Amino acid sequence: MITGHVFIATSLDGFVARTSGALDWLMKQPTEGEDHGYDAFMASVDGLVMGRGSFEAVRAFDEWPYAKPVVVMSRTLGQDDIPSALADQVTLTRLDPAGVMTMLEGQGWRRVYVDGGKVVHSFLRDGLIADMTLTRIPILIGEGRPLFGALDRDVDCEHLDTRTFPSGLVTSRYRVVNRPD
Amino acid sequence: MITGHVFIATSLDGFVARTSGALDWLMKQPTEGEDHGYDAFMASVDGLVMGRGSFEAVRAFDEWPYAKPVVVMSRTLGQDDIPSALADQVTLTRLDPAGVMTMLEGQGWRRVYVDGGKVVHSFLRDGLIADMTLTRIPILIGEGRPLFGALDRDVDCEHLDTRTFPSGLVTSRYRVVNRPD
Repeated sequence: MITGHVFIATSLDGFVARTSGALDWLMKQPTEGEDHGYDAFMASVDGLVMGRGSFEAVRAFDEWPYAKPVVVMSRTLGQDDIPSALADQVTLTRLDPAGVMTMLEGQGWRRVYVDGGKVVHSFLRDGLIADMTLTRIPILIGEGRPLFGALDRDVDCEHLDTRTFPSGLVTSRYRVVNRPD
Repeated sequence: MITGHVFIATSLDGFVARTSGALDWLMKQPTEGEDHGYDAFMASVDGLVMGRGSFEAVRAFDEWPYAKPVVVMSRTLGQDDIPSALADQVTLTRLDPAGVMTMLEGQGWRRVYVDGGKVVHSFLRDGLIADMTLTRIPILIGEGRPLFGALDRDVDCEHLDTRTFPSGLVTSRYRVVNRPD
């Protein structure tokens, strides 16, 4: 069965980005060549699913950071919004989370990196996330785009392990136990 | 100088209580006789400051849980709201956070346990928190009373240490580096 996996960093107050989408507070952290488990996680997935917000943030980077295929969930972007250099790597879809997972399973994907606040939340709400690797950045930014949102019911998680890093980042892995109906 | 210290648990989505104030999601955690550092922390403070919400939640317990003096910040509670059995242990105040700290310093307090979402936030905003011990409960509750809130500027923290427990709780200590002006 295809499963969704989250690997994401938040401020101590739970935001993935400022309200504007800015990531300056995240980028200024001294990472000292440490990847905080990112490469190993990325090696474990078949590709990524993200929303328009994450895609537009990443597209603005000097270099496209992903070697694996990326599916962008958006009802507003069109094929013209995908730079031609990325046409082989980026697919647009208007499917809902379950529809995306069924499509990707049909393409042979087994493990999906689900990224970005809104998309993580919608996949979680629909019971499509198997586990989450949550990294806490040692800063409070006060307001911004939250990682999590309203749920129909509590979602119990099981703590798997926690790593601390000299950078001050703390990474905890959780298995999602009772997925929402 | 008198300093404020936070020791508080939140859900993975950052809430200290449900919207109603309920703590059932917290109480159901299997703590297995482990106090998660609470007794040592409590031994390190001269007393507690909390808001009306925390006071009313704690007052409903079968037994008053604190051996140290408690200051309740409230503009609506009156002396009649303090059970007579607690009159020696609980003080009401309408002072603001800085005023409370000055008052307590005058009484010889050095380290104050600052408790409850709104009160923690107001002390943090006013630069009165020296460090925070944040415990993550492995559950998402979707909505509730958040620990943190809006700030005038970013608050950088320094990660001091993290402990994990068989219960699944993860406790991280942070020093507050640049306190807000």
